[in-house]
Amino acid sequence: MIMKLDQLATPALVLDRRRLLRNTRAMSERARRAGVDLRPHLKTAKSARVAELATQGHSGGITVSTLAEAEYFVAHGIVDITYAVCMVPDKLERAAQLAARGARLTLLTDNAAVARELGDRAAALGARFDVLIEIDSGEHRTGVAWDSDHLLAIARALDQSSHLALAGVLTHAGQSYACESIAEIARVAEVERRDVVGAAARLRGAGFSCDTVSAGSTPTAVHAESFAGLTEIRPGVYTFFDLAQVARRCCTPDDVAISVLATVISHQPEHRRLIIDAGGLALSKDTSAATVLPDTGYGWICDLGTCQRIGDLHVAVADQEHGYVTGGNIPYAELPIGSRVRVLPNHACMTAAAYDSYAVIDSAEDPLEIVEWWDRVNGWLNASNKGMP
Amino acid sequence: MIMKLDQLATPALVLDRRRLLRNTRAMSERARRAGVDLRPHLKTAKSARVAELATQGHSGGITVSTLAEAEYFVAHGIVDITYAVCMVPDKLERAAQLAARGARLTLLTDNAAVARELGDRAAALGARFDVLIEIDSGEHRTGVAWDSDHLLAIARALDQSSHLALAGVLTHAGQSYACESIAEIARVAEVERRDVVGAAARLRGAGFSCDTVSAGSTPTAVHAESFAGLTEIRPGVYTFFDLAQVARRCCTPDDVAISVLATVISHQPEHRRLIIDAGGLALSKDTSAATVLPDTGYGWICDLGTCQRIGDLHVAVADQEHGYVTGGNIPYAELPIGSRVRVLPNHACMTAAAYDSYAVIDSAEDPLEIVEWWDRVNGWLNASNKGMP
Repeated sequence: MIMKLDQLATPALVLDRRRLLRNTRAMSERARRAGVDLRPHLKTAKSARVAELATQGHSGGITVSTLAEAEYFVAHGIVDITYAVCMVPDKLERAAQLAARGARLTLLTDNAAVARELGDRAAALGARFDVLIEIDSGEHRTGVAWDSDHLLAIARALDQSSHLALAGVLTHAGQSYACESIAEIARVAEVERRDVVGAAARLRGAGFSCDTVSAGSTPTAVHAESFAGLTEIRPGVYTFFDLAQVARRCCTPDDVAISVLATVISHQPEHRRLIIDAGGLALSKDTSAATVLPDTGYGWICDLGTCQRIGDLHVAVADQEHGYVTGGNIPYAELPIGSRVRVLPNHACMTAAAYDSYAVIDSAEDPLEIVEWWDRVNGWLNASNKGMP
Repeated sequence: MIMKLDQLATPALVLDRRRLLRNTRAMSERARRAGVDLRPHLKTAKSARVAELATQGHSGGITVSTLAEAEYFVAHGIVDITYAVCMVPDKLERAAQLAARGARLTLLTDNAAVARELGDRAAALGARFDVLIEIDSGEHRTGVAWDSDHLLAIARALDQSSHLALAGVLTHAGQSYACESIAEIARVAEVERRDVVGAAARLRGAGFSCDTVSAGSTPTAVHAESFAGLTEIRPGVYTFFDLAQVARRCCTPDDVAISVLATVISHQPEHRRLIIDAGGLALSKDTSAATVLPDTGYGWICDLGTCQRIGDLHVAVADQEHGYVTGGNIPYAELPIGSRVRVLPNHACMTAAAYDSYAVIDSAEDPLEIVEWWDRVNGWLNASNKGMP
């Protein structure tokens, strides 16, 4: 049965395969030219079909942000997985179960005492893991400074474990998301590169092996001037892009591959707004683009077929199931109650998480026809975590 | 198998049955004393088990914010459902399918032309619905003013349909969420009551029946001084409460029934923070309490067992899977890496939506023991919406 966007229940998450492919190919080409592996971060798409496209021509390895993602991807045949969030011992049993199913899971740590505990726990579980040391290249979230004493202490702790192997270093210059110019992002990218390469040099100088030198957010992957010394990059949101990335000049609005299909449910001309059925749950409450792009709010209102913005219309207020659309001139006659719009999201990772699947279209063919449904994995727990069979 | 919170994978959503029962009983008692029906809004809990508790002693009717919720509750045997979002004709077929399964679904409209279209579509589908007219009592989201010409025009449009019946009027004074004092909320509650009762009087004066006079947000339900003329109230978030409701003095922190279980994953003393594995997805990016309560951010950090706040610790920054915890004095020794905390959420409706189930505890008994798992319904589409069997 052919289904079209103008028949689909709303709100729904639409993925334009044409834009997705253009995005994955451009980043793939960028990595190939730089001579680094592309290990895409699937925290944005959480989709095996997207992973398949994004890894084409590379090692096939991916990055994830949760163990639930890792389980989903292993079930879909992707086994080379970096879990890029600091590991704690209590999560090791679940990781060991993945390893027993054939996964090559690489873990992350930023603490020597935890590294020792992980080693003990891995030995008790009879499991072996590669471990990366997280380097803080200025985001100040997790990680150790490249030149700190902690770096070598962690390396020694890993080295002393018979069940853990130091695989290298990893960093994420998340401060790039707060930059407001390309030059600023390029400077952050250079710090990110220099710090993680510096950490690798220190480890090697101290006699440790350091095969992996991993960096990369989407802004720094797009705007870095050099990848020298890196072995891989791990951008994620570039697969879909969003208005936050438009704001950071990492893409144009025409590159944004996901949108939220919504229905106009009320006209309120006396209050200079109309209301759609996509609110805070359908769009998320993230407003990270709004600090740079005026009149963005929770997303831009675009037309159904071409997904081009209608004037300066945007979702200014997001209640749970109501989006308040405002702008300089609201064309009520063109947007009657019951008509459909598409909302370009502020932050793709947050918006997509409200949906269990993508209505996939291909704007190179019929822009309204849903050609496939792709699933995605959300949440954190599996049945066994809940004590269920 | 007995499972405890200190063994559960994180992040996870914890629901304290003791606090929930206290909340549902208090609101139930308030409605009974006022002589109005309690038709709880299940948009917050989205759980059949919570619906069962919240409706005890009342008509058994509930309110929902999506048709997916309506489908879930009908499947769980709850059939008297008000869908409290303006209806559009394209959604009527799905509503008719629910009616065919025995649901008594009451719809909402704020537009005469749409009411006529709904009537035509209902006739074409061979389905009959009760319809409420939405009154705007100052939120300016959807609805018509109680004294506007639109009110009687909508009533006439409904009256002319053989398949729709005017059931009454409904309002939601959502502006109560922005109030900062009890006196202010009480004033909003009185406007809400007066406007919707005024609309009912106008309809009756014009010869229309108006059985239902429905009002209520949690703040106005808690702080209203009179319910005179109302037939029902529809609060929702009171079942769980949250820091936004603490900020509006609708509850105390000890009434907040849900919390996010999280693990400390990194210490960053040089940056005066520690990092937990609950970030923007696990907590949501909603910060509605933060405008009133200082040092709230994305939630308060509480201890594992008693769920009491630790100093002034709070999640100041929420990346996708990382929460940055700050405060005047971070007790690193008491919160080693791997230890667990509970986060009181800023806005329960938004936070809970990231989870497919609740780990239910009962703090009146063992505060760590998970006594049950309760499911919840998220999202908007059913299999048939996706063209699947």
